[in-house]
Amino acid sequence: MNRLALRAAIHIAAIFALYLSVAMLIPAAVDLYYGNSDWQVFALSALVLGGFSLAVALATHGAQPAVTPRFGFLLINMLWLTMAAAGALPLMGGSLNLSLTDALFEAVSAVTTTGSTVITGLDHLPPGILMWRSILNWAGGLGVIALGLFLLPFLKVGGVTYFKMESSDIQDRPYARVATFTLSIFGIYGGLTLLCALAYSAAGMGGFDSINHAMATLATGGFSTHDSSFGFFGGNYAILWVSTIFMFIGGLPFSILILFALRGRFEALRDPQILVYAFYTLSIIIIAAVYLRVSNGASLLSAVTHSAFNVVSIITTTGFVSDDYTLWGPFAVACLFVATFLGGCSGSTAGGIKAYRFLILFKMMGIGLRKLIYPNSVASVRYGDRIIDTDMQRAVMMFIASFLVIWAISTVLLAATGLDLLTSITGALTALTNVGPGFGDIIGPAGNFAPLPDMAKWILALLMLLGRLEILVVLIMFSPAFWRG
Amino acid sequence: MNRLALRAAIHIAAIFALYLSVAMLIPAAVDLYYGNSDWQVFALSALVLGGFSLAVALATHGAQPAVTPRFGFLLINMLWLTMAAAGALPLMGGSLNLSLTDALFEAVSAVTTTGSTVITGLDHLPPGILMWRSILNWAGGLGVIALGLFLLPFLKVGGVTYFKMESSDIQDRPYARVATFTLSIFGIYGGLTLLCALAYSAAGMGGFDSINHAMATLATGGFSTHDSSFGFFGGNYAILWVSTIFMFIGGLPFSILILFALRGRFEALRDPQILVYAFYTLSIIIIAAVYLRVSNGASLLSAVTHSAFNVVSIITTTGFVSDDYTLWGPFAVACLFVATFLGGCSGSTAGGIKAYRFLILFKMMGIGLRKLIYPNSVASVRYGDRIIDTDMQRAVMMFIASFLVIWAISTVLLAATGLDLLTSITGALTALTNVGPGFGDIIGPAGNFAPLPDMAKWILALLMLLGRLEILVVLIMFSPAFWRG
Repeated sequence: MNRLALRAAIHIAAIFALYLSVAMLIPAAVDLYYGNSDWQVFALSALVLGGFSLAVALATHGAQPAVTPRFGFLLINMLWLTMAAAGALPLMGGSLNLSLTDALFEAVSAVTTTGSTVITGLDHLPPGILMWRSILNWAGGLGVIALGLFLLPFLKVGGVTYFKMESSDIQDRPYARVATFTLSIFGIYGGLTLLCALAYSAAGMGGFDSINHAMATLATGGFSTHDSSFGFFGGNYAILWVSTIFMFIGGLPFSILILFALRGRFEALRDPQILVYAFYTLSIIIIAAVYLRVSNGASLLSAVTHSAFNVVSIITTTGFVSDDYTLWGPFAVACLFVATFLGGCSGSTAGGIKAYRFLILFKMMGIGLRKLIYPNSVASVRYGDRIIDTDMQRAVMMFIASFLVIWAISTVLLAATGLDLLTSITGALTALTNVGPGFGDIIGPAGNFAPLPDMAKWILALLMLLGRLEILVVLIMFSPAFWRG
Repeated sequence: MNRLALRAAIHIAAIFALYLSVAMLIPAAVDLYYGNSDWQVFALSALVLGGFSLAVALATHGAQPAVTPRFGFLLINMLWLTMAAAGALPLMGGSLNLSLTDALFEAVSAVTTTGSTVITGLDHLPPGILMWRSILNWAGGLGVIALGLFLLPFLKVGGVTYFKMESSDIQDRPYARVATFTLSIFGIYGGLTLLCALAYSAAGMGGFDSINHAMATLATGGFSTHDSSFGFFGGNYAILWVSTIFMFIGGLPFSILILFALRGRFEALRDPQILVYAFYTLSIIIIAAVYLRVSNGASLLSAVTHSAFNVVSIITTTGFVSDDYTLWGPFAVACLFVATFLGGCSGSTAGGIKAYRFLILFKMMGIGLRKLIYPNSVASVRYGDRIIDTDMQRAVMMFIASFLVIWAISTVLLAATGLDLLTSITGALTALTNVGPGFGDIIGPAGNFAPLPDMAKWILALLMLLGRLEILVVLIMFSPAFWRG
């Protein structure tokens, strides 16, 4: 890692922080409008962060470094840490007055679009804080779309891209290309959020709730303005269905939504990962709904609605909850536990292992089994009409293997803080997949992460970042080779 | 799959069953000696199985097929199913009178050296049945050593072999080579079992118990003659240490033990997988012992003894229990949960993911991360002084990925039979790794598999076979390509 690259990365992060300080003026304005004194906290935070990041930006101004993979990895990590730190700042003052650990946990949970919260009494919080949480959720979602569509495929970590983007293209004029690209994402992401807010409102949700939930829905973030999440609107099935539909859209690849919406290319929707994603989502919805209807005697409408809402919420790694599904019976609980692994599409706001990895994995398994029978057979792994090269295959396998290893290690570390086995296993899992709620009494859908020991919160925050940045992007920072030369 | 190969595989399985029918005369003799009427069940079973398998063997006699991978896979599956069916036969009559499901579960658990049991009241069972369970455990262990050292590397499924064994070598004179090889394994395995029995006896265990436990120890099988397993001898630390040492030996590669014992080649012990196996075993023993001493206030001797015994029992996938370790506190429980994944060495009687896979996995991860930083770097995965080719790398990755997928699917299926989440998760895991006890009230170290629904027992039995035969060997039988032409 050379000094030039390090300085340039800090420079970009500082400019990013400057934007975030401006964003703090939104909750400040909201609190001012509602006559809440917390506006001062946001204004002060904006001033401090703005001044500091301006100073850093000026001090690190200089020549642009070559756009190497190493620079890309460094920048991604730095941007997410900046977002988390900036997000935590206003949470440590005002009416919330969170500890450093709690504020950082909440901010990391927000910007990784996980949605686990340490805050209780959401229903009575000042609007500014609620809005700030939603903004962080939303910004994290936007960031991860850009990451998955633009940076990760270039870095060969994973992701399926749909735009011809050669490395020469990036090396020659990186910023111009990024700008056009970001603008179209911004448009479709913002437009869908607006549409979602209008739909919530039409379904009977209040204006402020509609805006906040719309931001958390498209980001598949899962922060709610109510302690009981969508249980608050549990009787209003229209709201649950609006949410289900937009969460599902949040789990679709945004590049495809762009091709579809802006250029009217229907055939873009025939992406193999979308089929896989739709297939397993629909399967689990039906299985859980049948179980709820037959075994628990729920009405058909209630069974289908609650099954669809909570299954989509978990698979898209949103983390909204309409009901304490851990009381649905062991079979439904096991289905939802397995759903926690799945995730949405590459290039979406969803986390988890993701549909394209399962697709590539199963194709690799099929070819591998074939090769055991016919050792000399030759076949290539196909994704739609393209061939998945060995780099991509390796990235998929490395992701899944490191996922398993990190999950096991962090389960032990969480248990070392005194948590029981089920909380440790599912807490590590839900953080790593950015889902939000875990299983068990403490962190289950009816629970909250506040009672956890501080050390557990730090471990979970690291896991959320690992999961959000596709594990390898964070892991690589711990490799000595990364920092050499 | 051609008819010639199918017929030849059935022929070999029938001859194998003939040996098993002769083995039934051992428990018959034991029961006769102790004056128990169950000798008739064993004698009758021997007669029925012997007659039937003789008839099948004669009917399928014919030309030998070419030794292809497909023939190897078919034969392995057939031999284990034969062992399970033959093992179950005498359990369905006599004083036990188990149902078909229970008898098959117990026999599969025995021949896969898992050690989960559906039988309660072991302490009062006739000696013949206890001896039969031990024989099945022991035979399963012997089978898996041969499998891991000889067949799996040839089939490229996995395993690290130490003998130069080219495929031409196998194709030219397969049976001669197998015979010499099996004889040396038989010698060292039998010798160690005898040594273990003598050590148990010297430490104060009764003669009959010594023989039975020695067979289950070297096989890392875990069947005991007491409901409380080694809790029965809990106060006798000498017995626990004898068991710990021989279980650990059971987790070592037997080819290396042969090189070491018969040819005095010390350097053979410097196998990388042995270092990894010893490293993680020792680490978890120390961590759990410190926890028991500091947190639970156990005496140093008690903490070290019980930690060593139960950690080694789980890592070697034996499944003996000296204490209900689920009461040791969340951290110790999480450590033992993670230990359930690990397993012993390739070519041992232990199951689990196994040390060499972790070694290769971590080396692949290191090289993969390096390639993300320096896309053009070239490095090969090394195991000691040899290079792991892409076939082997693929096999390791396929094993781990299919392990994860099968575990997830079977967790859901077990929950569908009505089991709670923790029992489903850990039941599937303990069966797939051939450990034995799971976690939770029902199947925990103080529990028993008897109360499970029949369907759950069938699922678990299939998982045990999958795990014992390195997953891919069984999985391949479900591939259409396997049965084609």
